Order: sequence, then C-alpha cells, then structure tokens
Amino acid sequence: MLIVAINREKFPPLYRTVAANDGGLESHSYVPGGLDVLTSHPLNDQPGANPEQFIGLALSTCLNATLEAIEERRGLPHTSQVHTIVEMARDTRGFQFYLTAEVKLPGVDRETAAAMIDLAERRCPVAKLLGSSDNVTVKQVTEFSDAPAVTS
Amino acid sequence: MLIVAINREKFPPLYRTVAANDGGLESHSYVPGGLDVLTSHPLNDQPGANPEQFIGLALSTCLNATLEAIEERRGLPHTSQVHTIVEMARDTRGFQFYLTAEVKLPGVDRETAAAMIDLAERRCPVAKLLGSSDNVTVKQVTEFSDAPAVTS
Repeated sequence: MLIVAINREKFPPLYRTVAANDGGLESHSYVPGGLDVLTSHPLNDQPGANPEQFIGLALSTCLNATLEAIEERRGLPHTSQVHTIVEMARDTRGFQFYLTAEVKLPGVDRETAAAMIDLAERRCPVAKLLGSSDNVTVKQVTEFSDAPAVTS
Repeated sequence: MLIVAINREKFPPLYRTVAANDGGLESHSYVPGGLDVLTSHPLNDQPGANPEQFIGLALSTCLNATLEAIEERRGLPHTSQVHTIVEMARDTRGFQFYLTAEVKLPGVDRETAAAMIDLAERRCPVAKLLGSSDNVTVKQVTEFSDAPAVTS
C-alpha cells in the first residue's frame, strides 16, 4: 500500500481543542472552559469515568456521527446506533484495551447497512486513528450484546 | 518487527464497560448507568462535547495515569500533567484528527522526564492503540502551548 503523507499546509486545522489531566487517575479530566469529568480507577468502586470510557465514547460518537452524515446524504432518516464495548486485560508487558463497536442500523436492509458501516469506518477520523490496531473491531448487529461487568 | 498475537484466553478481561451514542452528533453520548455527556458539532456554537474532546481526554487521562504509576514506583511525588491538543482538518478524502500530547513533568530533571515519558508511551493502553498513527505525537514541554481556538 502506498502511503502518501498528508499535506497539512494545504489543509489547515478547522477546529482545535485541548483535553487535560493533571491529577492522575483519581482526579478529574477536563476541557478548559468546557467538559469537566470526575475520574477514577476502573477497578475501584468510586464514581468516575476512566480512559476506557473516554476512548469508547470517542469511537461511538465519531462513528455514529459519520453514519448520520451518510444517512442524510442518502435521504434516509437517522436510525443508526453505536455501542462500543471496551475491555481491559493484562498482556505480557502491561495492559491492553480491546474495543468492539457494535453498530445497529435498523432503517435499511442488512447488505445496505454493511456497505454504509464499511464506508463510515473508512471516513470516521477516530476509526482512522485506531484502524491499524488488531484490538479494534467494528461489527454490524441486530441486537446489542449484554456486555456484563466483569466480577473478580 | 515480529508481531506476536496476544493470547486473550490467557489474559481474560479484568474490566468491561460500554460507551454509546444513539442520536448522532447533536445529542448525547453515555455509559449506561454512568457518565452522560451532551454532544454537539465541533464547528457550531452549541454547548456539548465532541469526538475530538473524547479522544483527547482518553489520551491525556491514560498517559497521565501511567506516568503517575511510574512516579509512584520510583518513590516520586506526582507532578506530571498531560494536555492533549486535538486538531481536526480536511484531507483528500474526508477529515483527520491530529493529536499532540504535551507532557509536563516538573518534579525531575529533563533527561529523567524524557525516559519516564518514553516508558509511559509504551505502557499506556490508549497510546498503544494510537501508536502506529502518524497523526499522534507525544512530547515533553516545560510550558503548555496556548493552543488558541481556530477562528474561521
């Protein structure tokens, strides 16, 4: 595959934001002047979001926004939903996250949905960032998985 | 480089969560039973978070949590801070996100900080997911950039 570097001079930023964490995992993460979210370790019982949830929110929101744009361009009503399951597990040298984005698109037949999801996966900037990872899967579903909490 | 597939049977999930978006970009994204965040298009003036902010929060929180663990293991007080600048721009076929994670580590000398940041980048699961993308940069700073909003 030929990789052509993107000419960033030709395509200047249309939008810029900052997302920060100062206090570590048991603190809060924030966008200066915007969202401010309490954070906590995924394996304790304190309230708070964690990196697993933030990356899942990024993929679900981006992929569904892209599907919404594809629906709109085709003159279809918005029916898509994306639920991303994020799992954290040890590996030989630390920890890994595994993402499974389940996509429901009830407004069209299965084959049309597959083509739209494939297109969304190639267009969504978050999917592009994650696309080369073996840890990330996007799949069409008719019902979302239960995805029960892990109990130790 | 030899890539060895991770044996997921050997390393079962320690944690599982779900992050969802149903209504598209002008709606909300949520963790069932947890975080619920209003969302909006990055280029309009409505309040709301967006995929750019979620992916930035994921990287900042994960990288700083990993640095915090490295500081703790070395018996150092927690002084690290991570601010990720996320830019969105067109490319030849749609849009791209560009992430620059700025890391401040004032508690140690520059060289020690560089080694700790390098280790954190190799350990943080979000950095591992994003690591092969040319759009992602992690760098040590003594002061965070201004990162002004883009005005069109």
